[in-house]
Amino acid sequence: MEKNNYNKVSSITFNALKAIVGENNITSQKEDLEKYGQDETEDFIFLADVVVKPNTVNEISEIAKLCNQNKIPLTTRGAGTGLSGGALPINGGVLLSMEKFNSIINIDENNLQATVEPGVINYVFQEEVKKRGLFYPPDPASWGSCSLGGNIAHSSGGPKAVKYGTTRDYVLNLEIVLANGDVIWTGANTLKYSTGYNLTHLMVGSEGTLGIVTKIVFKLIPAPTNDLLMLVPFNSAEKACESVAAVFKAGIIPSAMEFMEKDAINWSMKYAGDVNFKIKEDCEALLLIEVDGMDIDVLMKQCENISEIMQAHNCDEILFAESTEQKNALWKIRRKVGEAVKSNSVYKEEDTVVPRAELPKLLKGVKEIGNKYGFKSVCYGHAGDGNLHVNIIKGNLSDEIWENELPKGITEIFELCKKLGGTISGEHGIGLVQKPYMPIMFSQSHLNLFKQIKLVFDENLILNPGKIF
Amino acid sequence: MEKNNYNKVSSITFNALKAIVGENNITSQKEDLEKYGQDETEDFIFLADVVVKPNTVNEISEIAKLCNQNKIPLTTRGAGTGLSGGALPINGGVLLSMEKFNSIINIDENNLQATVEPGVINYVFQEEVKKRGLFYPPDPASWGSCSLGGNIAHSSGGPKAVKYGTTRDYVLNLEIVLANGDVIWTGANTLKYSTGYNLTHLMVGSEGTLGIVTKIVFKLIPAPTNDLLMLVPFNSAEKACESVAAVFKAGIIPSAMEFMEKDAINWSMKYAGDVNFKIKEDCEALLLIEVDGMDIDVLMKQCENISEIMQAHNCDEILFAESTEQKNALWKIRRKVGEAVKSNSVYKEEDTVVPRAELPKLLKGVKEIGNKYGFKSVCYGHAGDGNLHVNIIKGNLSDEIWENELPKGITEIFELCKKLGGTISGEHGIGLVQKPYMPIMFSQSHLNLFKQIKLVFDENLILNPGKIF
Repeated sequence: MEKNNYNKVSSITFNALKAIVGENNITSQKEDLEKYGQDETEDFIFLADVVVKPNTVNEISEIAKLCNQNKIPLTTRGAGTGLSGGALPINGGVLLSMEKFNSIINIDENNLQATVEPGVINYVFQEEVKKRGLFYPPDPASWGSCSLGGNIAHSSGGPKAVKYGTTRDYVLNLEIVLANGDVIWTGANTLKYSTGYNLTHLMVGSEGTLGIVTKIVFKLIPAPTNDLLMLVPFNSAEKACESVAAVFKAGIIPSAMEFMEKDAINWSMKYAGDVNFKIKEDCEALLLIEVDGMDIDVLMKQCENISEIMQAHNCDEILFAESTEQKNALWKIRRKVGEAVKSNSVYKEEDTVVPRAELPKLLKGVKEIGNKYGFKSVCYGHAGDGNLHVNIIKGNLSDEIWENELPKGITEIFELCKKLGGTISGEHGIGLVQKPYMPIMFSQSHLNLFKQIKLVFDENLILNPGKIF
Repeated sequence: MEKNNYNKVSSITFNALKAIVGENNITSQKEDLEKYGQDETEDFIFLADVVVKPNTVNEISEIAKLCNQNKIPLTTRGAGTGLSGGALPINGGVLLSMEKFNSIINIDENNLQATVEPGVINYVFQEEVKKRGLFYPPDPASWGSCSLGGNIAHSSGGPKAVKYGTTRDYVLNLEIVLANGDVIWTGANTLKYSTGYNLTHLMVGSEGTLGIVTKIVFKLIPAPTNDLLMLVPFNSAEKACESVAAVFKAGIIPSAMEFMEKDAINWSMKYAGDVNFKIKEDCEALLLIEVDGMDIDVLMKQCENISEIMQAHNCDEILFAESTEQKNALWKIRRKVGEAVKSNSVYKEEDTVVPRAELPKLLKGVKEIGNKYGFKSVCYGHAGDGNLHVNIIKGNLSDEIWENELPKGITEIFELCKKLGGTISGEHGIGLVQKPYMPIMFSQSHLNLFKQIKLVFDENLILNPGKIF
């Protein structure tokens, strides 16, 4: 959905923006534009005409009105940790940084709810609610730096999603600024809602293309008091994947069920530097499995059951984390995989997701397609959710193959996902980089619905243009 | 959103419909039109021109095309148990009964998913998955007769929603027929999804106004193996409500936390006939509290903790259900309240919902507003969700007061809901009867978004016209 007749930010518009946000909250310095022109997606960089850092909802409303009247692209940016290019200002215009919207407005311990601004960092929020015995589960690998608003843009998940769901499952209500500057709350602060079309859920995952989130009401839950963590090595990656569905079938829902190929864990240990677990020569993949809850005896029993299931799938010797330090070290390895891969080679990450029990077929297919097109991949991800991050490594591949052949391979991977009942993004979103592959999932009729919904919210196509479709 | 230039079903259209569904699956007999012209909402009756009972998705696609081309209203009906008039064909036209879409197509025990047709009865589905050790939690009071498609129309809840969520939380993917006859799947069969606008979630709760659901993929979970049930009487309804939030604050999430005023339980026992619990003279309200899980010791401990919290809120003597029979009897009383109230008097039911801890304020406010306008109310509902069903009883009120004064009282109740952070429907939907109250919740700008979304999916406004807005 492209529109080519956008306007640049003129000096008149620049001054109008300055009048709205104040001169300390606007910049068009090249180094600033560069800083705000990148996220964590490959090596993309796109320069906006101007970066603004509003402080109030009213300012954002004024900015939206101004951009809408002047047909200037308006791209909202959280913390810039996205992996699909969702926050890149690819058509220039105004880059709206939400960094000053960083207040936890209220943690309501009576209702187990919190009202926050979207610029709050995920981990900061988690720690604040934890102090009160409460729990906000969505925990993307980038939790130390990603913002809650960005999490909403993609309905971000993380390891805990397998038991607790993704960001979507915790959003009760959103204050949003529409493209025309109108401000609405999308729903109510309630656990149940059957009051017209659910705009809260429509906003979650819409990647900043339908409105600008300015306040969020989250549901919280009581914090589990105990957890146990185990690392399970396998000499067959497919066997590791096969064991996953068996755990759920046995009636156990772990609080994390992470899969890593050998390379992923080795690269991550090397990258992290300060953690080292001995990985046997014949180990091909590992599962990192956590159970949590209120009762340690129940968790011990669950770990025993899980161990039996793993052994029945021919795992090697299981490591049980014996201290908080050891748990943290194991989690650090898992969380750093993405960065480690990035530091190792030019790569492309695909956020494939299928029904849980189809994971072995997906993994096998990814490797076969890699062989066919000559690329190597390092796979890891949230096995319990059927969510496999496929990191395709450039290594020694020529630029020509990388540019021309790789998209064919990715297309085949995504076609396989669809065939297995899955889709082309589980938690990273479509953004810029997965956009060309949307027709694999959706018919023209379906894509037209997307486009028309976009027009309902944003008739001039100013909000985060060029994303999703 | 009204449209007055709908066409009637002509004899040509009738014959075209007959050619699509076959002569045994079409009727315009008055007694049939009457039967399909009612649901469980007050005493409304609206006659369609014709009732069709298609057998295949393709037939529904052809019916939609025909109605769309001829601008004939097309109202989809599940099992007709709705409480907001959502399935009433208020503009005549074609009534599409989904009763033949009653197959459980597949229960996938490896992926903990099921694919079903929307005409399957909720309880039938629950029993089928239970046989496999699995669990589909949403359980509206009408579970013995309501259809899964109807549950999707309103994102129906039920007692278990407090721990397990509503219908929305179990829908992974929907096959829908659009107004123009196109057939699409809204998403993928995955636990995570970040692939463009989430049409699955937009469809859930849209009350048949955006498309016709023809297949559903549900997520299932392992079935809990144990449950315990307790009945807790209070001599103050407000005290009962106050105790509710305290349970969650203590870190316990019961699998049901139901509230009933004394009248509700007495009427229900009288109506059910075969169940009788002694309710003390000074009892004003009761909580029915269930905990469930895999470990009976954990549940016993939870019950102890809950008992302590209840006693700290001055409850009377707690009854613990000692047998399956006693549990069933208690649940029967709770499930029959709605029918009992209906059999007792002309009434109007409001499906109010607020944040959990605001329930005492809502209840107090409802009674004060009742006193002001001279109406009595019987309240019951899902206290753990803050979801209070307010049954306003006509009793001896004159028709004039009932027609002219009552809407003012209802308006005040809904304004109070909004003020408390809540909304005007938690699980029954807006349908026909709550439509006039939508401007309490939504600005003109917000309602315009609803109307434009409707037009994206249904430009001729044929699908379930006159509902929601």
